[in-house]
Amino acid sequence: MQWLSAQDDELGLFTDLYELTMAQAYWYEGMHADATFSLFFRNPPTNRAIVLACGQEHAAELITRIRFPHEQLDRLADLKLFREPFLRYLEDFRFSGEIRAIPDGTPVFPQEPLLEVTAPVIEAQVLETALMNYVHLETLLASKALRVVDAARGRPVLDFGMRRMHGQDAALRGTRAYAIAGIHGTSNVLGAFRYGLQPQGTMAHSFIQAHVDELLAFRTYAELYPGTTLLVDTYDTLAGVDKVIRLARDEGLDIGAIRLDSGDLAELARAARRRLDAAGLNTIRIVASGGLDEWKIHALVEAGTPIDGFGVGTDMGTSGDSPSLDLVYKLTEYADEPRLKNSPGKQLTPGRKQVWRARGADGRFQGDEITRVDEVGTGEALLHPLVHHGQLLHPPRPTHQVRETAAAALDALPAELRQLDAAMSAYPVRFSDALLALRQRALDALPAPPSIVGSDG
Amino acid sequence: MQWLSAQDDELGLFTDLYELTMAQAYWYEGMHADATFSLFFRNPPTNRAIVLACGQEHAAELITRIRFPHEQLDRLADLKLFREPFLRYLEDFRFSGEIRAIPDGTPVFPQEPLLEVTAPVIEAQVLETALMNYVHLETLLASKALRVVDAARGRPVLDFGMRRMHGQDAALRGTRAYAIAGIHGTSNVLGAFRYGLQPQGTMAHSFIQAHVDELLAFRTYAELYPGTTLLVDTYDTLAGVDKVIRLARDEGLDIGAIRLDSGDLAELARAARRRLDAAGLNTIRIVASGGLDEWKIHALVEAGTPIDGFGVGTDMGTSGDSPSLDLVYKLTEYADEPRLKNSPGKQLTPGRKQVWRARGADGRFQGDEITRVDEVGTGEALLHPLVHHGQLLHPPRPTHQVRETAAAALDALPAELRQLDAAMSAYPVRFSDALLALRQRALDALPAPPSIVGSDG
Repeated sequence: MQWLSAQDDELGLFTDLYELTMAQAYWYEGMHADATFSLFFRNPPTNRAIVLACGQEHAAELITRIRFPHEQLDRLADLKLFREPFLRYLEDFRFSGEIRAIPDGTPVFPQEPLLEVTAPVIEAQVLETALMNYVHLETLLASKALRVVDAARGRPVLDFGMRRMHGQDAALRGTRAYAIAGIHGTSNVLGAFRYGLQPQGTMAHSFIQAHVDELLAFRTYAELYPGTTLLVDTYDTLAGVDKVIRLARDEGLDIGAIRLDSGDLAELARAARRRLDAAGLNTIRIVASGGLDEWKIHALVEAGTPIDGFGVGTDMGTSGDSPSLDLVYKLTEYADEPRLKNSPGKQLTPGRKQVWRARGADGRFQGDEITRVDEVGTGEALLHPLVHHGQLLHPPRPTHQVRETAAAALDALPAELRQLDAAMSAYPVRFSDALLALRQRALDALPAPPSIVGSDG
Repeated sequence: MQWLSAQDDELGLFTDLYELTMAQAYWYEGMHADATFSLFFRNPPTNRAIVLACGQEHAAELITRIRFPHEQLDRLADLKLFREPFLRYLEDFRFSGEIRAIPDGTPVFPQEPLLEVTAPVIEAQVLETALMNYVHLETLLASKALRVVDAARGRPVLDFGMRRMHGQDAALRGTRAYAIAGIHGTSNVLGAFRYGLQPQGTMAHSFIQAHVDELLAFRTYAELYPGTTLLVDTYDTLAGVDKVIRLARDEGLDIGAIRLDSGDLAELARAARRRLDAAGLNTIRIVASGGLDEWKIHALVEAGTPIDGFGVGTDMGTSGDSPSLDLVYKLTEYADEPRLKNSPGKQLTPGRKQVWRARGADGRFQGDEITRVDEVGTGEALLHPLVHHGQLLHPPRPTHQVRETAAAALDALPAELRQLDAAMSAYPVRFSDALLALRQRALDALPAPPSIVGSDG
C-alpha cells in the first residue's frame, strides 16, 4: 500500500515544515556555505547499556533520492509561505554533499556521531527529519532486540511482533534490525523475504477453536507440516501436551515442538517436559510466548526452565520499556567555524568529529575517544565516507553482512555490558583534549553573556 | 519510498506466516464455513481511561485489496510449505465476506468489538495481521493524543514528533490520528497535506547557530514569515526574549510567538511574559516544547503558567507511557456455533456481538452493553456494516468528518473520564445475560475436562 509511506516523489515533503522555511531563509540570505550536522544521542536510553546503530546506510541512500517535483512544489506553494524563486531552487534540489557514518551494526554510546553530514547548509538542513526518522527506528529496534537475544543465552528468539508494531514500515524494517541483532527468525513473511530472516510460524488459537477437537487440529497440522510446532494452551495446557504425545508416540507423527502461550510458563514448561520425556519424546522442544520481554526470558533462563526457544512480540516490537532514543541532529560547524548552542541541559560539542575505538591486551574494546576529525586517535576509526559529492560510495550492505559486523563488534565489547542491568556509563567514552579546547573557544566566542533566569523579577 | 511499506501486490505477504499455513490446513480439510473474528482489546491500557478507535474504515478498504499475484506466490512456493493446489487457490483470493465496525473516532472500552469479520474461515484468518497492524497504530496514537489535548485544556497542541516516530507509516498515519483526537497542527508536511491538518513550524536551534548572531537570525525570519514563532533558548533564553522585544517594539516586526524548548519552562514562561507585557507586547504568545507529555502539560496548565500552546513530540509520537494496546483478533464463531478458548487469563466471550451505548437524562453516555448480535439493546448500536459480500459499502470518511464524530462522542462521555488519572473501569460496560448464557453453554460444551497444572508431578 503505497499510501502508507511517502511516494518516491513525495520524499522531499516527508519533513518538518521548519526545515523548508529555514531553507528558504538561508537561501534569501545567501547562506550557501557548508554546514556540518552530527547525528547522535545525547543521553543513555532507559535500560540500555549498548545502542546498536542501524539504518545509516539506507538513510544515506534515501538522502540521495530527495527531490521536489513540480506537483509537490505546487502543494508547498499553496501554503503561501514560499516565494517563487526559492521554489524554483527546490525544483533542482539534489544532495551534493558528504556523508560520513559509522557502519550499520556498530555499538555506539552517548555523544558519538552515528553519522555526519557536511553540505551547503540548506541541503544539510532539509534532510534532517527524514534522516532521523529512518535511523531512529532501526537503531531503536536493534538495540531492544539485542537485549532479548542476550537474555535468551543462545536459545533461538523468534519475532512475533508485527501485529502491534507501529505500522508497516516499523514491522518491515524491524525485521532488518532484528536480523542484525541476532534474532533467529520472524513470523513476518514479507520482512523475512526482504531481509533474509527465516520466516517461522506455529498456529493460532483460532485454528484449534475452529476445529473444537484439539486432537484433530493437531493431527491435521502435523501431517501437513512435518516438524511443526503445536500450540497446546487453548483449553487445558497439559491435556494438550498429552494429545501431542499421543500423536507423536502412538501415531508416529513428526512434531518438532510445542508452544506455551499463557499461564505460569515455568511451571507448565517443567510439567510438559516431564510428560514428554516420560513418553520418550525428548526431541520435542518447548517454545514459550505470550507477553515476553528480556526480563521474563532472563528469569526463565536463570531458573533453568526447560524452554528451548522464545517467541517475542509486542514488547520487543515497540521497544516497550524505552520506545524512543534521544537521537538528535545538530549543527556543529558552519563556514568552517565551530558552532554550538548553550541551552540548559542540551549543550553541544562543536566541530566535525571522529570516533576511535581501542582494544586492550585481551583484544576487547576498552574505550572510545571522540576527537576532532583531523586528529589521529588510538585504535579503529569508526566513521567512514558513505556519500561523496552527492554520490553514494557503496550501496547499503546486505543484512547478513551487517549482522557479521554486529556480531564481531558485540563480541569484542566488555562482557559485562551484555548484562541486562548494565549501565551504559560502564563503557568509557571521552572527548579529546583538542575537542574540549575547541568547545571552550566556541563558548568563549558566544555573543550573549549569560543572564540569570528570574533576575528580571 | 515504496520499500518502506508493502507494495500493493505484496499486501498478501504482509502477514504472519501462520495465517497462511493455517489457511492451507483449512483448505485441505475442506473447512470453508463462515467464521466470525472479533477485533477488541482485552485489558485497559496503562494510564488510559478512553481508547479512541481509529483506522477501521481504512483497514476495511485495505482488506478488500489483499491479493496474491503470481510473483508473490513464487516467493511463497520457495518456502516448501505450500502445495500447488493451495497456491492456485490463493491466486484467485479476494475477500468475499462481511465486515461490521464501530466508526472511526468512537471511544471504546475493553471487550467491545471495534470490528467483526464474518467470512469463510480462510479469508477471515488470512487478513488478521494486516488488519491488526493497521488499526492498532491509529487507535494507539489517537488515544494518546487525546490525553495531551485534554491536558492542554483548549490551548493548541502541535505535533512535532515525526523524527522519532516509528517509521514513515507511523508518522504519516499518526497525523490522521492526531487530527481525529483534536490536535491543532503538525510539523509533518506530507501528513498535513494528506489528512488536512494545518502544517506548522517554528525554527530550529541550528538556524540560530548558523548565524551566531541571534538578533540577525530572528530579524531574517520575522521579515520573511510575518507572525512567525521565534525560538529563544539557543544561548540565553531571556536575552533571546529581549531581542524579540527589540524587533517587535523598536523595529515594528510582526512576531506571533516565542518558543521555549529547554530549562524550567514555568519559570521562563513567567519571566518572558513579564518582559513582553512590560514592553507592551501582550499579543506575542508563548509556546513551549521540549520533552513534553500530558503530565507536564497538566502541571503547567494547573499552575497557571502563561503558556499559550504546546509542541509535543516524541512522547506523544511513540505513546511513550503505553506504546501498545492489548488489541487481539479472536475467533468467536465458526459454522454458526459459538467458539471460545479457555487459556489462563485469556478467556473469550463467543458469538457475534453488538455494542449498545445508552444516554442518561443529562444526554451523556451512561454505560455500554455488549450483546449478541440478534439482541436489541438500549441506546445507539455502535457496529455498522462496512463491507458486504466483499464490497466496501462506503469509502473511508474524510478526516474532518471523523473528527466531528470523535468530538461529539467525547463530549458526551462522563466528564470525569477526561481526567488524566481516571480509570477505564469508571465507565460501566456489561455483557448481556444472553451473551453470558451463550458463553456458559460454550464452556460446558468444551471437550477437555480441566486438569490441575502440576498434578502430574
